[in-house]
Amino acid sequence: MELYSYFRSSASFRVRIALALKGLDYDYRPVHLARNAQLGADFTAITPTQLVPQLVDGGQAIGQSLAIIEYLDETHPEPPLLPKEPVGRARVRGLALDIACEIHPLDNLRVLRYLVRELKVGEDAKNAWYRHWVEQGLAAVEAKLASSPQTGRCCHGDAPTLADCVLVPQIFNAQRFDCRLEHLPTVMRVFEHCMLQPAFQAAQPSACPDFEP
Amino acid sequence: MELYSYFRSSASFRVRIALALKGLDYDYRPVHLARNAQLGADFTAITPTQLVPQLVDGGQAIGQSLAIIEYLDETHPEPPLLPKEPVGRARVRGLALDIACEIHPLDNLRVLRYLVRELKVGEDAKNAWYRHWVEQGLAAVEAKLASSPQTGRCCHGDAPTLADCVLVPQIFNAQRFDCRLEHLPTVMRVFEHCMLQPAFQAAQPSACPDFEP
Repeated sequence: MELYSYFRSSASFRVRIALALKGLDYDYRPVHLARNAQLGADFTAITPTQLVPQLVDGGQAIGQSLAIIEYLDETHPEPPLLPKEPVGRARVRGLALDIACEIHPLDNLRVLRYLVRELKVGEDAKNAWYRHWVEQGLAAVEAKLASSPQTGRCCHGDAPTLADCVLVPQIFNAQRFDCRLEHLPTVMRVFEHCMLQPAFQAAQPSACPDFEP
Repeated sequence: MELYSYFRSSASFRVRIALALKGLDYDYRPVHLARNAQLGADFTAITPTQLVPQLVDGGQAIGQSLAIIEYLDETHPEPPLLPKEPVGRARVRGLALDIACEIHPLDNLRVLRYLVRELKVGEDAKNAWYRHWVEQGLAAVEAKLASSPQTGRCCHGDAPTLADCVLVPQIFNAQRFDCRLEHLPTVMRVFEHCMLQPAFQAAQPSACPDFEP
């Protein structure tokens, strides 16, 4: 398998965690988003969406981090990244989507660029935008985690699931942009538990071959 | 089952299509987003995320449209909304996420409100923002659909899947905001085919109990 990834892309980070949790080997193919490598002909030939991550398995390119993780879970079932029963699966997927649909899309690089270049938004207002969606979005995740008996050391029970694969990279982003985190005790407890585990450490940006300090 | 929905919410529309395709009965519970009913105590007690749609099944609230549709597909398998083989499932989920993560989050009501109220963006620039993400995002979907032999009368083969449940509401939004659609012949062919089917017609905004012209 080959993973097209960028060290700082949190969607790529999600997939790297899943691959590490399942103990799967892969070739790391860097795509330098800050230099717009995703817009080049080489990468566009792999996917017209020009989005990382892309997993190439048996010659097939698979995009969208959540779809890739579900694919990995279906083709390499151990350890499972989703619970067995439908309500639990829906809870884990819902938590992952609360971040992947409600927070992350508003704060990715091309959106921040549009704010600055097209809407002439200043640095302070851009950072306030970033923090607004992260802090509000994670408050909803906190409320869900704090109110459910199904929350364990991880988002759902004591073993990592798809939800943790998505939560951890979002906290990296939040820390990078100095977002407020004091209102998120359960989220941060889960984050810190996950980061003790080798799979999460191995997948983090600073452990990537294309890492730049 | 109960579905908390707003006629104009395209995430709710996705779930209404899935329920109709599976022929499932449900009680329609309107949540008036334009009047901020989702922020009230009644709805917050159902979900701290304050997001529609929510499906309540056996007393359990399930949020996030894509998680709800996967739940319905697991608990009511016929007709299936995902293919059987993992690569096909990943393709369908990827198409759904190309819209649910890359287009829709940038154009929902609370984001447009933030642009206007916090960033003081004018009407023309707000509409240009809206159209930018829709037109660019759907161009990527078009490229994927047009280049794949797996595209049929619907996004994946000839029967509706999760991808069609997500595509059709996005086109309703695009038409409402006068987005350019000429560059999307395959997308529009699939849309028009879907809209001939009773399940898609029954789920559309104008067929909802809370519809307002």
